[in-house]
Amino acid sequence: MGVSLMQQPDKVYDVIIIGAGPAGTTAGLYTARAGWKTLLLYRAEADGALAITQKIENYPGVPGPVSGYELLKTMREQAKKFGAEFVRGKVIATDLKSDPKKVYTIDGREFRGKTIIVASGAMERANKFKGEEEFLGRGVSYCGVCDAAFFKDQPVAVIGDDDYAIEEAEFIARFASKVYFIVPGSKIKAPPEVIEHFKKLPNVEILLRHRVIEIVGDQVVKGIRLKDLETGEEKFLEVNGVFIFLGGTKPSVDFLMGQVEMTDGDCIVVNEEMMTSVPGVFAAGDVLCNEVKQAVVAAAMGCKAALAVDKFLSGKEKIVPQW
Amino acid sequence: MGVSLMQQPDKVYDVIIIGAGPAGTTAGLYTARAGWKTLLLYRAEADGALAITQKIENYPGVPGPVSGYELLKTMREQAKKFGAEFVRGKVIATDLKSDPKKVYTIDGREFRGKTIIVASGAMERANKFKGEEEFLGRGVSYCGVCDAAFFKDQPVAVIGDDDYAIEEAEFIARFASKVYFIVPGSKIKAPPEVIEHFKKLPNVEILLRHRVIEIVGDQVVKGIRLKDLETGEEKFLEVNGVFIFLGGTKPSVDFLMGQVEMTDGDCIVVNEEMMTSVPGVFAAGDVLCNEVKQAVVAAAMGCKAALAVDKFLSGKEKIVPQW
Repeated sequence: MGVSLMQQPDKVYDVIIIGAGPAGTTAGLYTARAGWKTLLLYRAEADGALAITQKIENYPGVPGPVSGYELLKTMREQAKKFGAEFVRGKVIATDLKSDPKKVYTIDGREFRGKTIIVASGAMERANKFKGEEEFLGRGVSYCGVCDAAFFKDQPVAVIGDDDYAIEEAEFIARFASKVYFIVPGSKIKAPPEVIEHFKKLPNVEILLRHRVIEIVGDQVVKGIRLKDLETGEEKFLEVNGVFIFLGGTKPSVDFLMGQVEMTDGDCIVVNEEMMTSVPGVFAAGDVLCNEVKQAVVAAAMGCKAALAVDKFLSGKEKIVPQW
Repeated sequence: MGVSLMQQPDKVYDVIIIGAGPAGTTAGLYTARAGWKTLLLYRAEADGALAITQKIENYPGVPGPVSGYELLKTMREQAKKFGAEFVRGKVIATDLKSDPKKVYTIDGREFRGKTIIVASGAMERANKFKGEEEFLGRGVSYCGVCDAAFFKDQPVAVIGDDDYAIEEAEFIARFASKVYFIVPGSKIKAPPEVIEHFKKLPNVEILLRHRVIEIVGDQVVKGIRLKDLETGEEKFLEVNGVFIFLGGTKPSVDFLMGQVEMTDGDCIVVNEEMMTSVPGVFAAGDVLCNEVKQAVVAAAMGCKAALAVDKFLSGKEKIVPQW
């Protein structure tokens, strides 16, 4: 699986930023303004902890209440104004030891950068569903753009509860005969207009407060067992595909594939200048497991990482990791 | 010297924040919003490194260019909205071991707080003028409100280059027969309307690009020797008083009087939660000598200090300094 959409092997960015929340976007604002060729890779428009925050009134300098998504959009506009490029693409792999470094997205694209800032947040799931690993690649998928076409005119389940899951589900609904959108909680964390648009699709059925018990099948997925938390009733849905786009609270670091030093809890270790154990690879924001999860603190880390990238690229100072 | 303007011995704040730049103001926004009785003491309206910055376009979330003073005003309005009190007063002394802790301003007021956040910035002078220490209290002063009345109908010099110096000089001009406002550089760092108002005072003479060579006298100050950097010419002005309100780049920590642990360069040592070696006393912003002097980084430190104050006051966790 995986469709190669675009390759730009000759293009090398000065800095590739993975994640466009407050940390990544602030980093991009600073590096682009400093004249460095800057790329930000993001998973979905309203993705991340800030973007799904309904009301903010304590971000210093921005009198609230504003939605997290509005605040983030303002930051992104600033970064774009200085020339930062924003490209949608979920990062699944990296090669940090090559020169230039390489970043791969789930749809098969490759991006090259002299430096990397990891600002991918902390919204990964800690636990998998029963049957999820068993049927991965045999009906279970984490990428609509890659795999939706395999389920043409077939029923599928999409499990998620945010803007990112909806964007993927809308794409999948163009192929599948039926999309069951399964939400574990009672709310979808996305802008109201996005939810409204999604609800109007004729082949989409939204199931709120449904817990996944098991993904079942033989060679391939045959269905999914659910519990309706409202009624206590168990349900079985016949589906051939199960797309999972749920978030949690763990750092998103799988794509680093162990190339940088981490603590036991998957927390990236950085020095004073936000640099990881790999020279030229920096990290900022919630992905660092910092206790204070406030937008202004993430933004400040992005600023620091950007200034360190600037120093690194300018060769103003040889930076050696502190290990 | 020192005039007692107000005493409120019974009033105890939950937190007193010394300094109302981005660090102090953000801290105040967070503590006030959390319901803690919050006082911010500030030296002058447009005082501090951010307030004198002409143009900012890289503060994430606030599309620029805005002046630093405008950005700071917005932050202060947010803090006020949540109930933070702002009081003008230059802090000159503290008692951090008493319970509650005490903070003293140059005009003789005393304020009491359960916790303190030091966010006083880094704009102190490193070197003194020739004669400055010799004539301190005998013509040399750092406080217009305290000492202006001693120079009724006498000529004085005021040395400074910012909003704070102008506010003091305007007060002094109500008493002195003549005020020479001596600016070492070619520019006054204050909003244009403030400078315009100041220039119109009949007994004020502004001397730009004048370096102080020496403050001279016998028992008391008799005059000041200057060099006009434009012409190279030396000048002697007969004055009975010399008020000094110049800033530099050293941390403003004199009022701590060695009560908290510091490094050799007068940098306060703090733990992960921004707490100093004295329990309940925190620090944030440029006063900490951090390399990155960006408003968003200072604001983030203020946020962290405020959350630590909240924890400390709530007794959610016993915080013991890490020494």
